[in-house]
Amino acid sequence: MPALIVMPSDAPAVKVEGVLADGAEIRLYDRNTESREEISAQIAAERGAVLVPSFDDPDIISGQGTAGLEFADQMAEAGVTLDHVVIPAGGGGLASGIALAMEGRSPETNIWVAEPVGHDDWTRSLKSGHIERNAPGTRSFCDAILTQAPGDLTFAIGSRLFSGGLVVSDAQVADAMRAAFRYLRIVAEPGGSAALAGALSCLPDEMKGKAIGVVVSGGNVDAADYARVLMEG
Amino acid sequence: MPALIVMPSDAPAVKVEGVLADGAEIRLYDRNTESREEISAQIAAERGAVLVPSFDDPDIISGQGTAGLEFADQMAEAGVTLDHVVIPAGGGGLASGIALAMEGRSPETNIWVAEPVGHDDWTRSLKSGHIERNAPGTRSFCDAILTQAPGDLTFAIGSRLFSGGLVVSDAQVADAMRAAFRYLRIVAEPGGSAALAGALSCLPDEMKGKAIGVVVSGGNVDAADYARVLMEG
Repeated sequence: MPALIVMPSDAPAVKVEGVLADGAEIRLYDRNTESREEISAQIAAERGAVLVPSFDDPDIISGQGTAGLEFADQMAEAGVTLDHVVIPAGGGGLASGIALAMEGRSPETNIWVAEPVGHDDWTRSLKSGHIERNAPGTRSFCDAILTQAPGDLTFAIGSRLFSGGLVVSDAQVADAMRAAFRYLRIVAEPGGSAALAGALSCLPDEMKGKAIGVVVSGGNVDAADYARVLMEG
Repeated sequence: MPALIVMPSDAPAVKVEGVLADGAEIRLYDRNTESREEISAQIAAERGAVLVPSFDDPDIISGQGTAGLEFADQMAEAGVTLDHVVIPAGGGGLASGIALAMEGRSPETNIWVAEPVGHDDWTRSLKSGHIERNAPGTRSFCDAILTQAPGDLTFAIGSRLFSGGLVVSDAQVADAMRAAFRYLRIVAEPGGSAALAGALSCLPDEMKGKAIGVVVSGGNVDAADYARVLMEG
């Protein structure tokens, strides 16, 4: 069916080209001066289109939560009970979906989110007990998870089910991307490597020596940027 | 148990470091002037060690053939019968093992090997009906599959079960590595990308439009070399 994707203007070229190759339209927006939610709502109203939100939606959360079911299935098959799972979080759709799945299938597992320095809205929100926003204009290498604040739905789930947040630097994320290259042979994008960075570089003492699951969640990174990360290692 | 690995002196550093990190000794040899089979046999005799050959051995072939069982299982689950499978080949252990597995589980599937220009010993051997050797000193980007000739055991299997060979250039291999990066998010080493190169760049007309399985088999590539391949794309 016809689709229009509202994407930040600093999205990786590979992501833009992938969307165009699939035949969708793109409306680029500026992260710092525009709201994708407002733009999307307006276009959907004009066109009579169905709006598919990026994270704060029961179906999106449920769909992303199937990653948690896969995790639970594979851990059951391996005979391992995870003490902790770490998940990259922007708006928190993936993390809250996985948390719901694990609540049903592996309730003893603690759920942690990982996010970039300067975009630690989840970490601060979980501490304060209400939704905290990031300072406007803050940037990070982790383009895919730079939302301004937890969503209403995802925070309702996260505040009940998340143990806390791990805050990672761009340098720790680059280390994690190189580790994924070298030891896992996985091409991981910056935002998708945040949880691996948390597990490798800033694990809280209480998690050390425990069975830890890590979600590596995307590979939309331009070749030149990826090559630069490899060469800096 | 203690292990000593006889490796070519031009092996990627990541492979050498991986072996050392696992605690094994390494004896480097020169591909052009030394025989790893002779070196290994001599060391094994001196030390009373068990010799584990690189490909021409029933246990190695059987072990590598489990990749074919996985292929057959996953295709059965997907409800797909493969018309062709393409496999990178140096000595042919992996390819002949997979061929045996597919003979048992999917006998209608044709098996093809892929190998680099200048190391097309399998392609020529399959045409002539007897073991043909590569010219000494020929080099290629595909370090992992630069053997001099098919083995006795692997050729006995391959001459019965292989349909033929696809011969790929270094440039086609680099294209395949970039395709694996971009579309599969897999870090693939040059030799491990030879079959993907064959499928993408030099598929015989009889295979076009058919259901084709491709084996991508290794990710031992140094970061600097990988970055260079990405930047050349």
